[in-house]
Amino acid sequence: MSPALKTPPAPDSEDALTALVALVREDLDACNRQILERMQSPVALIPQLAAHLIAAGGKRLRPLLTLAAARMCGYRGDRHVRLAACVEFIHTATLLHDDVVDESDLRRGRASANAVFGNQASVLVGDFLFARSFELMVEDGSLEVLRILCGASATIAEGEVLQLVIQNDTSSTEEQYLDVIEGKTAALFAAATRVGAVVADRPQAEAEALDAYGRNLGIAFQLVDDALDYSAKQETLGKTVGDDFREGKITLPVLLAFARGDEAERGFWKRVLEERQQDEADLPQALELMQRHHAFEDTIARARDYGDRAIAALAGFPDNPEKQALANVVEFCIARAR
Amino acid sequence: MSPALKTPPAPDSEDALTALVALVREDLDACNRQILERMQSPVALIPQLAAHLIAAGGKRLRPLLTLAAARMCGYRGDRHVRLAACVEFIHTATLLHDDVVDESDLRRGRASANAVFGNQASVLVGDFLFARSFELMVEDGSLEVLRILCGASATIAEGEVLQLVIQNDTSSTEEQYLDVIEGKTAALFAAATRVGAVVADRPQAEAEALDAYGRNLGIAFQLVDDALDYSAKQETLGKTVGDDFREGKITLPVLLAFARGDEAERGFWKRVLEERQQDEADLPQALELMQRHHAFEDTIARARDYGDRAIAALAGFPDNPEKQALANVVEFCIARAR
Repeated sequence: MSPALKTPPAPDSEDALTALVALVREDLDACNRQILERMQSPVALIPQLAAHLIAAGGKRLRPLLTLAAARMCGYRGDRHVRLAACVEFIHTATLLHDDVVDESDLRRGRASANAVFGNQASVLVGDFLFARSFELMVEDGSLEVLRILCGASATIAEGEVLQLVIQNDTSSTEEQYLDVIEGKTAALFAAATRVGAVVADRPQAEAEALDAYGRNLGIAFQLVDDALDYSAKQETLGKTVGDDFREGKITLPVLLAFARGDEAERGFWKRVLEERQQDEADLPQALELMQRHHAFEDTIARARDYGDRAIAALAGFPDNPEKQALANVVEFCIARAR
Repeated sequence: MSPALKTPPAPDSEDALTALVALVREDLDACNRQILERMQSPVALIPQLAAHLIAAGGKRLRPLLTLAAARMCGYRGDRHVRLAACVEFIHTATLLHDDVVDESDLRRGRASANAVFGNQASVLVGDFLFARSFELMVEDGSLEVLRILCGASATIAEGEVLQLVIQNDTSSTEEQYLDVIEGKTAALFAAATRVGAVVADRPQAEAEALDAYGRNLGIAFQLVDDALDYSAKQETLGKTVGDDFREGKITLPVLLAFARGDEAERGFWKRVLEERQQDEADLPQALELMQRHHAFEDTIARARDYGDRAIAALAGFPDNPEKQALANVVEFCIARAR
């Protein structure tokens, strides 16, 4: 493993993503064209609603990972472009269904699709994008790729259901929480990077290394997301502080503060998250408890730990610009918390 | 085409289905085992919710079609069993999402899954079953089968979205209505029967004939369903009369009554379906208008017409018990209206 990767050059985090984008610019443009083309339908509401979410941006983080992973593996064809689009469709479909499930009004700083088009349309257009993503995989024609991405889709749904089950339950465990985020977030990161090795026809060990990279990165990414929900930094990202809190989602910062709190504090968490009795003073109170017990920093430290594992998983690959960019992406994901 | 098929022996309709079940009993048992096995998950809520819908019965009409179509084509292996399970998973996933979209409280005469487990769980378990159905296809390993069933899934979603778009719009056309039911219902019937020819490795013409059989049968099936929503017969099927009416769904009986009504009647339809201002007297009034304009009988006559096309599509296949059973299924679907 090159020492440069062990401690990434701590670039400005946006720069890390910009550098990755610059590196696969042509592929990304082709992927965006593919996305726009394949979300079309004679039923006009489908591209309208999909455009609200897809065209509105988002970082394209997952497709970027597919593109860079394939190139890092020396792949020179263009199958990875279609698969990157496919990964973005799966991601978008889950976002649409998530917002219905969470009853969210905001997504990426603007009105969520369900708030604009209604829950019904969001459910059905999500289904369309799922089905379309499978069509893209079938067009690629590799059963190995199909196995990876279909498996990830099933795992995502399992993670989401588990999250629903343990929601509002302060007795749920860190292990359950990790199962949730491995399912709902990390499984798609892992599949997105793994298929890079598969299209490049690399040995099984490299596919597994890229799977480990994506999985650990995905866990780190979600840990940071969950920490940010309790941070003022969140507002600069166009999101509201305390969304998880209001929904009674049990995330690592909550589990840490709960475990480290005294009886009165546990009573507080049970009232606000289990019984969902919240008033205006409760979010500030929650933030104070988080601070008292270092729940935010320790969640970020945990994220950094998974981030290190992600970087370590790249060790066996030859040094090239894509490898460096993938290592820097880890820093990008974690630095959002700064 | 054998004349016996042109005019099916008009069996008691339940007998037609019973005969089909008897003919593929072993396959159906294997399919049911496959369904129960593959809806399992470490997340207990998934099999619980799936069992509510799947184990609670339903006729297994679509998987029966796959099983019988493969056997009619002379197939002697067991790939069709897994694909029949896959078809039932797709169907179940769409039912779960439909009930969320329709806000239904009843399904097959008992509380719908969303009424018992909540909308959120229904959306997510539907996603799981979709993903699982794709995993089953991938295990089968035929790209041709994958193409057919993935394509059907995308078409189903398109049909459902179109239905949502033209809902409450009395100016929508018969053509749009046919697009909706071809998408939401007939596409899966067509795919379910078509894969029978594919696993049996039959020529393209036979795959297309089975596609036509399934598609026309599916349209007939949905036409009868839509007619039944305005018939007292509905209650004997454990469903409520007037569900479509209350939701403002524009179905063929409505389009016929609307087109044949005078200005006052059109005003009535606009008030109740477009403006959704309904009171107790309105459903009886709607039923009376349907009767006055023969909307029910003419919808059934249209269904019979599509049923005849379905039977005609079987003409090229050698006579065997499965072919006769598939012809009789047409009668089963239409006779529900009697």
